[in-house]
Amino acid sequence: MVMGELVFVGMGLHDERDLSIKGIEEIKSSDKVFVELYTSLMAGLNLNSLERICGKELHKLSRRDLEDYGGEIVLKAASSGKAALLVPGDPMIATTHVDLRIRAERKGIKTRIVHAPSILSAVIGLSGLQSYKFGRCVTIPFPEKRVLSETPYRVIADNKMLGLHTLCLLDIIVEEELYMTVNEGLKYLMEIEKRKKEGILSGCSLAVGVARAGSAEPVVKADIIERLIDFDFGPPPHSLVIPGKLHFVEAEALVALAKAPEEVLRKEHG
Amino acid sequence: MVMGELVFVGMGLHDERDLSIKGIEEIKSSDKVFVELYTSLMAGLNLNSLERICGKELHKLSRRDLEDYGGEIVLKAASSGKAALLVPGDPMIATTHVDLRIRAERKGIKTRIVHAPSILSAVIGLSGLQSYKFGRCVTIPFPEKRVLSETPYRVIADNKMLGLHTLCLLDIIVEEELYMTVNEGLKYLMEIEKRKKEGILSGCSLAVGVARAGSAEPVVKADIIERLIDFDFGPPPHSLVIPGKLHFVEAEALVALAKAPEEVLRKEHG
Repeated sequence: MVMGELVFVGMGLHDERDLSIKGIEEIKSSDKVFVELYTSLMAGLNLNSLERICGKELHKLSRRDLEDYGGEIVLKAASSGKAALLVPGDPMIATTHVDLRIRAERKGIKTRIVHAPSILSAVIGLSGLQSYKFGRCVTIPFPEKRVLSETPYRVIADNKMLGLHTLCLLDIIVEEELYMTVNEGLKYLMEIEKRKKEGILSGCSLAVGVARAGSAEPVVKADIIERLIDFDFGPPPHSLVIPGKLHFVEAEALVALAKAPEEVLRKEHG
Repeated sequence: MVMGELVFVGMGLHDERDLSIKGIEEIKSSDKVFVELYTSLMAGLNLNSLERICGKELHKLSRRDLEDYGGEIVLKAASSGKAALLVPGDPMIATTHVDLRIRAERKGIKTRIVHAPSILSAVIGLSGLQSYKFGRCVTIPFPEKRVLSETPYRVIADNKMLGLHTLCLLDIIVEEELYMTVNEGLKYLMEIEKRKKEGILSGCSLAVGVARAGSAEPVVKADIIERLIDFDFGPPPHSLVIPGKLHFVEAEALVALAKAPEEVLRKEHG
């Protein structure tokens, strides 16, 4: 009979100081502690400092450990004792974590989640836009063999049809230090628009870029795509919001909190 | 010239141990610390214990302080020094916080957000369903003068048409200790279905109830509405998910993580 347990501890957005008291307690009482850092970029994270805070040695896992080998090393540790897996953001937003949790539960390992800040709510909050007006979110992936995915464009089109905003997460490939910028994301979207010609996006469409959510100095900037595509957001990670129909309070929020030029909002809203 | 600053510190989902290291640091360095507890229910929160952790006296604000008086007491404190406002969940998901932030920025007060776990990502994570398959979220409000809002039903219908899941937050009125249960939420939805007859929901439709997200013992249960409507989820807060089209991994997740009866998923998915 399996007596172990596996706790997924969210680390939040930016650095080790995003850990909650609860998260630290769970780590301290674990027999073995793993950490994965490839599903999101935590730009300020210092592993040594994280180890000091937790008072534990951390075993860093690669994508291969979790995806190709199915997290066997974690499941083994969690079969006979208490294991913790530290993950960026709020756990279970990445499918890999859900897969591992299902495998653990099927082996009779008890699982638990310690929640943490997620990019999903952080970007919504930073943009000043209203959470219940966001439609489905989407990731803009890097082109594969120069082929651009049309999915983000489709999702934006579906959402816009309903007047809804779209949160676009931007692809990262941590192993190759590739982090998509707001500028690249917009460029890819405009390339699809050029091909599909559905008039979903134009140079005059409004967009909101968010950089380094959760850090002490996030950048949030709203403007028309034509200008935003050249705006310097600084280091990664970046995210992008394509607004749908704006409520006037949202238009005010974009001016006050996202430095949107007022004349753009007047045009967009009125 | 205003030299002050206002930091919105998210407290997360359940109790004071959801606070992050960053949040505690920001509170400790504040001149005045406010807390509002009416936008969400943090069922395990102990204000005395929170004060001990933060080493600060907390000034509790009512809905009236923030909404009728526009948070003047907070803005005053933030004009001349550093003020912190502690809020449940991730800040800025409630419109009240966005309003206050806009007012502060317009007065020249610098604002910052310390992110925290949000019910938005927590329920997605606990359900095992995939984040990018959720459409717009909605709140099911208590009936006003016996009139039920049709909005949640419309949102579910729009999302289902696109194959998407709907996260339904359930209304709370903290001042009256009214916390909508999953059972009530489902009852209201079924009443609208009965009136509209659009076939969006039936007793055989799948739903997922989540209770006490963020606590040590959350309850997550998926089943057909007919049975879920009588399921005892225990104390509040509760949330509800109405799934759209399920990917087979999501169906597996509902069985493994949300105790869905396998035959329901076979029917739903196959």
